Amino acid sequence: MEILEGKQCILPALLARQRKFRLLLVKQNIQPKRIQDILAAAEAQAIPIKYVDVAEIDAMTKGRSHGGLVALCTPKPALAIDKLLELCQKLNMPPLLLLIEGTEDAQNLGYTLRSAEALGAHAVLLKKHVWNFDGVAVSRASSGAFERLPLVQIENVEKELGPLQRSGIKFYGCLAGAKRTIYELDLTGPAMLAIGGERRGLSGALRERCDGFVKIPMLTGASSLSLSHAATVVMAEAMRQRRAQTLSREQGAERVLLKN
Amino acid sequence: MEILEGKQCILPALLARQRKFRLLLVKQNIQPKRIQDILAAAEAQAIPIKYVDVAEIDAMTKGRSHGGLVALCTPKPALAIDKLLELCQKLNMPPLLLLIEGTEDAQNLGYTLRSAEALGAHAVLLKKHVWNFDGVAVSRASSGAFERLPLVQIENVEKELGPLQRSGIKFYGCLAGAKRTIYELDLTGPAMLAIGGERRGLSGALRERCDGFVKIPMLTGASSLSLSHAATVVMAEAMRQRRAQTLSREQGAERVLLKN
Repeated sequence: MEILEGKQCILPALLARQRKFRLLLVKQNIQPKRIQDILAAAEAQAIPIKYVDVAEIDAMTKGRSHGGLVALCTPKPALAIDKLLELCQKLNMPPLLLLIEGTEDAQNLGYTLRSAEALGAHAVLLKKHVWNFDGVAVSRASSGAFERLPLVQIENVEKELGPLQRSGIKFYGCLAGAKRTIYELDLTGPAMLAIGGERRGLSGALRERCDGFVKIPMLTGASSLSLSHAATVVMAEAMRQRRAQTLSREQGAERVLLKN
Repeated sequence: MEILEGKQCILPALLARQRKFRLLLVKQNIQPKRIQDILAAAEAQAIPIKYVDVAEIDAMTKGRSHGGLVALCTPKPALAIDKLLELCQKLNMPPLLLLIEGTEDAQNLGYTLRSAEALGAHAVLLKKHVWNFDGVAVSRASSGAFERLPLVQIENVEKELGPLQRSGIKFYGCLAGAKRTIYELDLTGPAMLAIGGERRGLSGALRERCDGFVKIPMLTGASSLSLSHAATVVMAEAMRQRRAQTLSREQGAERVLLKN
């Protein structure tokens, strides 16, 4: 069981319906208006709600950000790799995946997931050691993206990523020393973008699997981008290319319509 | 006076030469090899070095990240607006500035500066309340960019930004609701990109000054990007456009050379 604190964490988790909620504890005398949406979501899922003294909530929580709300629930489930394959096959567009091999801390992982979701990633794959995070801190920084995004835990690159690659998804590794920039890469097809940790970079096992390597153009002499910012720039470029393709298709269809 | 802790903060500050260092305290019996570069930079600037018991350093510092090194120095100086104008006029390319009107915390501000530097910002302008940060935390997260980047403190948008705009720099505000995307904007000319805080967005005073507004295309239904990630995506697009222009000019020059 995990303990989620505060509306900012609990509401997205309730709405995403990926965790199983055992109990919702609410501070007595809480302003009902403030938790209207939480209560509606909890009732829709028949989650027991208990009104308790705030001291009881204080005793259960670490921070002071609970605001009178605590939920007991199962951890965010990982998506199995075969389920990810199914998900990719069902999409009405080429899959776009992000693989993270390292992270600085829970907050940065949360921000990375937030960007990944906003910029169109269909799922994020995390190496096993990255998965070992403080779920509550990740969830908070992610603005709920952690709750909504399908997350896959990767232990063995060879075994688990093989089927993904055989399904037609191209693997691109981000490396500072790559010759090609992200702007020279076609990201409109099925793609997985892999980013290594800031200290160690991409692992050898992953490099061997990559179909190509790309870099983000940066000023020489400056420090490189952080992992979460690098991931965001790469994802934004994928979003730009995919959007441009959709727009040009739509314009093409419009021209055909006008002709007929 | 400020207290800088640890090599990661002190070395970039020494090399950037923007602060005045009064004293460098070094733990007795420190491995000389580990601080070779620090000592060389300190000696080049005739900064007094004192070897002390680690307890003395512990007593002066907040965290445990000093690694036996502490420096006493003036705060990072702000660049006056007239000096920024001079700097812009001396550049051999159109100036690219970033204005930040809000920030989540010191760490995110540090990351924003790190991205701004890596992606070619010539200076970053910070509203006065944003400037009110923990310099050490910003410096650490920025990987030294805080020490190297010219930073301008803005108190009065009208008074201080007027001269900048009259010098020919176009102001573009980032707004989620803008019609135009950053990809439809020409960022190769003199430009200042303005980003508001996550909660309040761009201030009215700044909006009134803007020559145009742009958005980053994102998935609907997802949470928006964080301020530092939004700033990074916009700066990356400026870098992309400027690089593409330089490359096409170089190719043009090459063609001319081949013709002659």
